[in-house]
Formats: sequence, structure tokens, C-alpha cells
Amino acid sequence: MLLTWDQLVMMPEQGAGVRAHQLGALARLTHERATSPELGEWLGELEGESLDELDRDVVRLARRDWERARRVPEELAGEIAAAATDGQEVWHMARTEDDFAAFAPALQRNVELARERGACLSESGQSTYEALLGDYDFGLRVEEVRAVFSALAEELPPLVAEARERTPRRTLDVPVAAQRAAVGETLRRLGVDPSSWRLDVSAHPFTAWIGRSDSRITTRYSDGEVEALLSSLHEYGHALYERQIDPALDRTNLCAGTSMSMHESQSKLWENHVARDRDFAEVIAAELGAAGFAVSPEDLHRTLVGVEPSLIRVSADPLTYPLHIILRFELELAMIEGSLAVADLPGAWRESMARLIGVEVDSDARGCLQDMHWSAGAFGYFPSYALGCLIAAQLWEAMEAELGSLGERLRSCEVAPIQLWLAENVHRHGRRLDTVALLESATGRALEIEPFLRYVAPLARG
Amino acid sequence: MLLTWDQLVMMPEQGAGVRAHQLGALARLTHERATSPELGEWLGELEGESLDELDRDVVRLARRDWERARRVPEELAGEIAAAATDGQEVWHMARTEDDFAAFAPALQRNVELARERGACLSESGQSTYEALLGDYDFGLRVEEVRAVFSALAEELPPLVAEARERTPRRTLDVPVAAQRAAVGETLRRLGVDPSSWRLDVSAHPFTAWIGRSDSRITTRYSDGEVEALLSSLHEYGHALYERQIDPALDRTNLCAGTSMSMHESQSKLWENHVARDRDFAEVIAAELGAAGFAVSPEDLHRTLVGVEPSLIRVSADPLTYPLHIILRFELELAMIEGSLAVADLPGAWRESMARLIGVEVDSDARGCLQDMHWSAGAFGYFPSYALGCLIAAQLWEAMEAELGSLGERLRSCEVAPIQLWLAENVHRHGRRLDTVALLESATGRALEIEPFLRYVAPLARG
Repeated sequence: MLLTWDQLVMMPEQGAGVRAHQLGALARLTHERATSPELGEWLGELEGESLDELDRDVVRLARRDWERARRVPEELAGEIAAAATDGQEVWHMARTEDDFAAFAPALQRNVELARERGACLSESGQSTYEALLGDYDFGLRVEEVRAVFSALAEELPPLVAEARERTPRRTLDVPVAAQRAAVGETLRRLGVDPSSWRLDVSAHPFTAWIGRSDSRITTRYSDGEVEALLSSLHEYGHALYERQIDPALDRTNLCAGTSMSMHESQSKLWENHVARDRDFAEVIAAELGAAGFAVSPEDLHRTLVGVEPSLIRVSADPLTYPLHIILRFELELAMIEGSLAVADLPGAWRESMARLIGVEVDSDARGCLQDMHWSAGAFGYFPSYALGCLIAAQLWEAMEAELGSLGERLRSCEVAPIQLWLAENVHRHGRRLDTVALLESATGRALEIEPFLRYVAPLARG
Repeated sequence: MLLTWDQLVMMPEQGAGVRAHQLGALARLTHERATSPELGEWLGELEGESLDELDRDVVRLARRDWERARRVPEELAGEIAAAATDGQEVWHMARTEDDFAAFAPALQRNVELARERGACLSESGQSTYEALLGDYDFGLRVEEVRAVFSALAEELPPLVAEARERTPRRTLDVPVAAQRAAVGETLRRLGVDPSSWRLDVSAHPFTAWIGRSDSRITTRYSDGEVEALLSSLHEYGHALYERQIDPALDRTNLCAGTSMSMHESQSKLWENHVARDRDFAEVIAAELGAAGFAVSPEDLHRTLVGVEPSLIRVSADPLTYPLHIILRFELELAMIEGSLAVADLPGAWRESMARLIGVEVDSDARGCLQDMHWSAGAFGYFPSYALGCLIAAQLWEAMEAELGSLGERLRSCEVAPIQLWLAENVHRHGRRLDTVALLESATGRALEIEPFLRYVAPLARG
């Protein structure tokens, strides 16, 4: 993780070639240890012992990881890694030149290899796609995802139509210096202390957890934009999750976020429910004001929650965002299942964008070539982005049911009760509970879409 | 190396605990591989093959490293590591409180463990100290070091006495901003390009080579000092050595500087023979002037080469510097051999300082407690600092014999011929030649003190 953080934040560009070798060597060594037969023998011995609950979980997860790692033959893993590297390179050029045909063979290869990999990973009649999903969200069922996404695909488009009529998205021309000051001060008030955090700039915001007390988040500042105000709290949510895992799990295989969707729920919680909160806008507006950019909390809030259907996922508003994900889920599922040919992807993308979000795709570069994921062989990753939004809303409602409305507290940036609730109900468990079990433990309910609909409905109405 | 660079330059302070675990785990894994019996079997097979010259050197050095690593029992290595960690902690407190008695037991323990380790490493009648020296300078003989240092201990004190009468050291009150600008611009003119170098600030200047095109040097700026102008070129010399190793050695065990003394010769060459050169002062003075600090090249040069006997090694001038090292060599040799008891160290230090440098020690904190090395169990490391000064001077004379006087070129910062000569005669070999063989290959002569005496004599005369 440090090699990656350094590469994206600090490394001189000419360091890239050697860094690729370093990461490759480390991946090989890690794989060698993660799949060693010796490890299986040790696990067998431990499974025969009487262990306490924590150690039982250590062994249970070690067994699961070891078996999954061993199911994929080394040769296939090597082909997948090579195809991913190649795919990203081809994709980058194809996107620049808006040339889907140039990308199609690499995508075809990645789809085929993902199918092979999914077949290796599949357990007891599991579909190939569901097996791939397990890389990101172990135990999640495709049928469950499909049901939730179908319901959203019914409920959200009417809200989008409503929003389109009522609330044109506003912009705020915030200078970079004011963004930088407001981001720094807001994070400081959330507990981001230089003695155990870093805040840096990178091309794409991300979070690295180097150790419990060494959290590193990045953001980016574009002149006249508000993105940094949202993305910095998004990354803060990822970092806080890892910081608040029970210290008893330190240096075990359990000391990590449990899944991609749960991780994304933590970032979305701070992005959607704190940064985009009407009361919290007082906090950010005050910091912008202190940095010389006067804006009323109302205007700031309206900008942060403005809905505007568009082509690009990463800059989508909170209402249309899940629709971008549903589109990708449907298409990647169809490609892996074989019901959608790679050559037909651009057309299918256009059709889905019109149906789900009501916008017309003007180019493949801004259509099916916009994301890097498939070029790197990542199929089954996209759903977690939307599931994160749903889980965040469900957790937020459960929290407010217990703590009372949080508005007053957010107005004065009093976030300690939120941090504590999340630590107690979500973070401390680390990997001991998988996504669905963790959600039920925290909220008493299975995954639902209603909390999210209750969150976005007012945004649609402006 | 990246973990260490990050720790000293970027890491939030609370990351220290986890970082210690990370470094410890990596050291254990590295040791495990470096000493594995399998490696010995492979080497045995390779030694029976017909190999080209490069591969023969790869195998020869791998055999040497493997055997040295295996000679120290794992248990002893663990005790040494623990005593070093403990020793540094105790030393830090003892130095702060000027309390040698508090440090003595930890030092005693380190001396005993070093003796044990030396006994393990010793080959065919080698003395314990010489075996320890091999950690830093493989193949170097204690008798050789002793002879060279004895001659210096004769020749330098009269020059120091001469300097004391003639040239009081001058100071220049350079503001930090001007230092920073001059360091950055001077390095840029030496080829330090942000696309493959980093220049950062750390408590103690050092160099990290993360990859051939990813060199990272650090410096520090103190108001009213000129140290940064010297130390930044010192670190540049270390980095350039590793950058100019023959690319054919990339990713082999030969792709590193060959020894501590040869590495130090490369840093001292740029510090003593470039940064302290009368003509190169034109370059630095111009950069200081451009940054708003007007100084004549003559005044700058006089400050950079001023001689002033003092108590502290790290800030010593180029003339007295080797005497600080000779003192440490004599005392650590005596402690390892058993002819100097740890309890008698403070007295011996005072006596030697008076004899060699002619100054009176006012406290142990500024006397025998000033350096960290012994607290960390590093015995045999100090000599390389002085040997580096001698080798730098010898290389510089050989270079000028071939290229002609370099003064005119230095005046206009034309350093390409120097870089090329060093690449061809020193750097490209990596670890293929040990210190003495490399020096002979580059200069046609064994290690001598005369070039260094010719370099410092004019400094003594002012």
C-alpha cells in the first residue's frame, strides 16, 4: 500500500518502470505465501484445536482466503495480470481517440479470462459472475443485487424526471485557495490531525491506510469546482473505517474493511449524509468564508445536492449515481453470461443511458470507454459503488433512530457521536462479519432501498 | 528503503509503532531468504556451470553474502537487534541528560555482542574488529586502516595548529529562503530534475535510491548557516553513484555501491571538491545573489572552507574531520579488543581530543555521547567516513590528471565530464570490485594520504 501511495503521490514519474517491477515482485511473493501447501496443513491443525472466538475467526478467514487463492491456477493468474496491464494501456489510447473498435479485442480477452477465473472460483453451482463478485463482496448473491437494482431502476427514473423539471444544477465559482483552506479546516474539525494523518493531492482521490495511526487521504482541486469539498469527506470515511477497527484485531487477517460495498458505504456516509447535509453546510460555508469566499449555507448546500442527469459516473449527483452503476452491472453481467457480445456494447450502453438516465451518448469516449475497470479485468466491482449508497442511507437512519436527529450536531460539527456509533456498530468488527451479516447486526434489517429513496426524494424536489 | 525514506520524510509521527513492526517483519523475511539452505544448493549448482563474467560475479557475491549471513546464529542476531533498539533509546536520554553512567551498561552490552558477532564472522585468523569492518568495507585490512590513520594523525595536527593561527572561521548569515533557492537551483544545474529526483527536508540529511531513475535526497535548512549548501551536494554524490551503475547490473545483487567508504568518497567528492571549490563558489554565489542574498564568491568560498577545531564531528571542517574519525577508530578498536574498558571511555575521549584536535571536552554530551553509532551496535562503521575523504581526493587528482584542471569548468557548472569520468571509472562497476580493487582500477594506485594532504594544506593556510 505504501508503494502504491508513493507512486500516486510522491514518486518522480521516471520511477514508474522500477516501481512496476517492485509491485510485481511483491505480488509474486505474496501469492507464493498465500497459496503455500504448508499454510493448509497449519490450518488443518488449528481447525482441530479448541480456539477462542477471535482465533476461530482468524482461522476461518485464513481458510477462505487460502482456498480462494489456490483455486486459480498460477498460469491463469499470470495471463490475467498480463491482459489487465495490456488492457489498460490499449484502453487509455482508445478512450483518447474515441475508438471502441481498437479496445474491443482487449476487452474480449478480459471477458474470456474473467469467465475462466469465475469458473475456477465458483462453488456449489454458483454462477460465474457471482463467483467474481466474491472478490469484492464475499457472500453477496447476484439475485439479491439484481432484485435491489431492479427496484431502484423502477423508482429512480421518475425522480430524475422530476428533478430535471425543477432544479437546474447550480455552480459555485470557488477559487482553489479557498477550497484548499476549507477542506483542510473541515477535516481538522473532524479529527484529521497531522500527527496521524496526511492530506495530499493526487490525480484521482484515494485513501491509503499504512497503519492504524497513519491514515493518508488525497484530494484534487479544480478551479471553480466544489468536488474537493465532497471527495475529501468521502476519503475521510474510508480512512475512519480502518482506523476504528478493534485494536484486538491488529496484525491479524481480520484487521481490514470487510468488503468493497461496506467500505463504500463508509465513504458515501460522510459524502452524502454529512458533506451534503443542509446543516453541515453551515460548517463548510463558514470555512469558505474564513478563506475569503463568501457564500450562504443555503447556496452552498443547493450546489452540493444539485441534480443534473449527465453522461459521466464520477461526477454524477447522488440521485443519478446509482443508475450509472445499474447500467454497468446489467452490461457486465450480460457480457460475462454471454448474452451481450463485446461488439454490441456501445449500442447497449446508448440504449441503457437513454432508458435509465434519459441522456443521449455523444461518443464512446464519454460512453462505454469512460471507466478503467473492465480494461483491468475488474468485473463484479461496480455494484459496490451503488450498494455503498444504499447501505450508507440505511446506516444513517439506524443511527438517527438511536441518537435522534443529527442536524443540530452537524451544524456545529459535533461528529463524535457519529464516529462512536460507527465504531461500535460497523468498524470494530473488521472482517469478522461479511457485508450482509454486518448490515443486519448494525441495523437489524436486511439490505433495503427505502432509506436511500427517502434520502434522495427531497433532492429531486429541490 | 522506501519504508525508511517515508518514515524520515513523510510519515505522521504516530505511524512509528506500526512502521517498526513493518520494518521488523521485512527484516525477518529478508533474513529468512538470505540464509535459506536452498540458496546454498543453487549456488553450488551454478558454481559447477560455465558462466559468463557477469554471472560469475553475481554468483561470487551471492555466495559471499549467503555465507556471511549464515555465520551469525539467528538467536545472536535477534539479541543484537534488541540491544541496538534498547541502546539507542538509552543513549538518547543519556545524551540529553549528559549522563554517561546511564549509557555505560547498554554500551557494554553492545560491545560484548559485537565481539560475539565478530567472532562468528571472522575468517582464517582475522581479528574480531576486522571481521566487523567487513560489514561496511569487505576486504579492508585493519592494518591498512591503522597505517593510513597513523600517518594522518601525524600530518594533520600541525596543519590544524597552522590554521588556528591564521584563518578564523567566517560565518555568513544566509536566510533560509535564499539557502533553499540556491540549493534547488544549484542541484538543478547538476541534473536534479523533478521527473526523476526528489529533494525534501528531514532532521538529518540522507539519500534513498528507490530505483535507477528515482533518487531522493534530503537536506535541512538552519537560519544563518551554510550547511545546506554543502550537505545537499554531499547527498547528490551518494545518489549519483547509484544512478550511474551499469544498467546491465539492474535487478542483480551487484547493483549497489560497493562499500561504505566508496559511497562516502562519492559524497565527499561533491562536497569537498565541488561545493568547496574556489571556482564553483561563483556558481553558488550567483544563485544566492539571484535569491536576494548578495555575497562575493571569495567570501562564500572562505566560509565554506574555513577551518576551526571543534568538538562536534558532523559540523567539522574538512581538515579536522578525519581526526574526529581517527579518534573514534582508535577507541572502538580498543573497546572491541578489550584494551579500553567502557567505563574509561569518557577519559580516553578527552585525552584523544586534546592530542588530535587540541580542544577541551566540556561535557560527555558533546564528547563521547555525541554519535548514535555505538548505541546501535555499529562498530567498524566510522573509518569509512575518513577513508571516503582520502579516496575522494585521490580520485579527484586522477580525474584532473586525465581531464586537465577542472577549475574553468566548475566556474560555469560544466560537470558533465566529471559525471562521465566517475561513471566510467567508479560507478558502473557496482559491487563487482571491492574498495581497494576499485580504487586501484580507477587511479592506478593503492590508497594514499598525499592527495588529501595536498587538498587540505591550502585550507590550513587560508
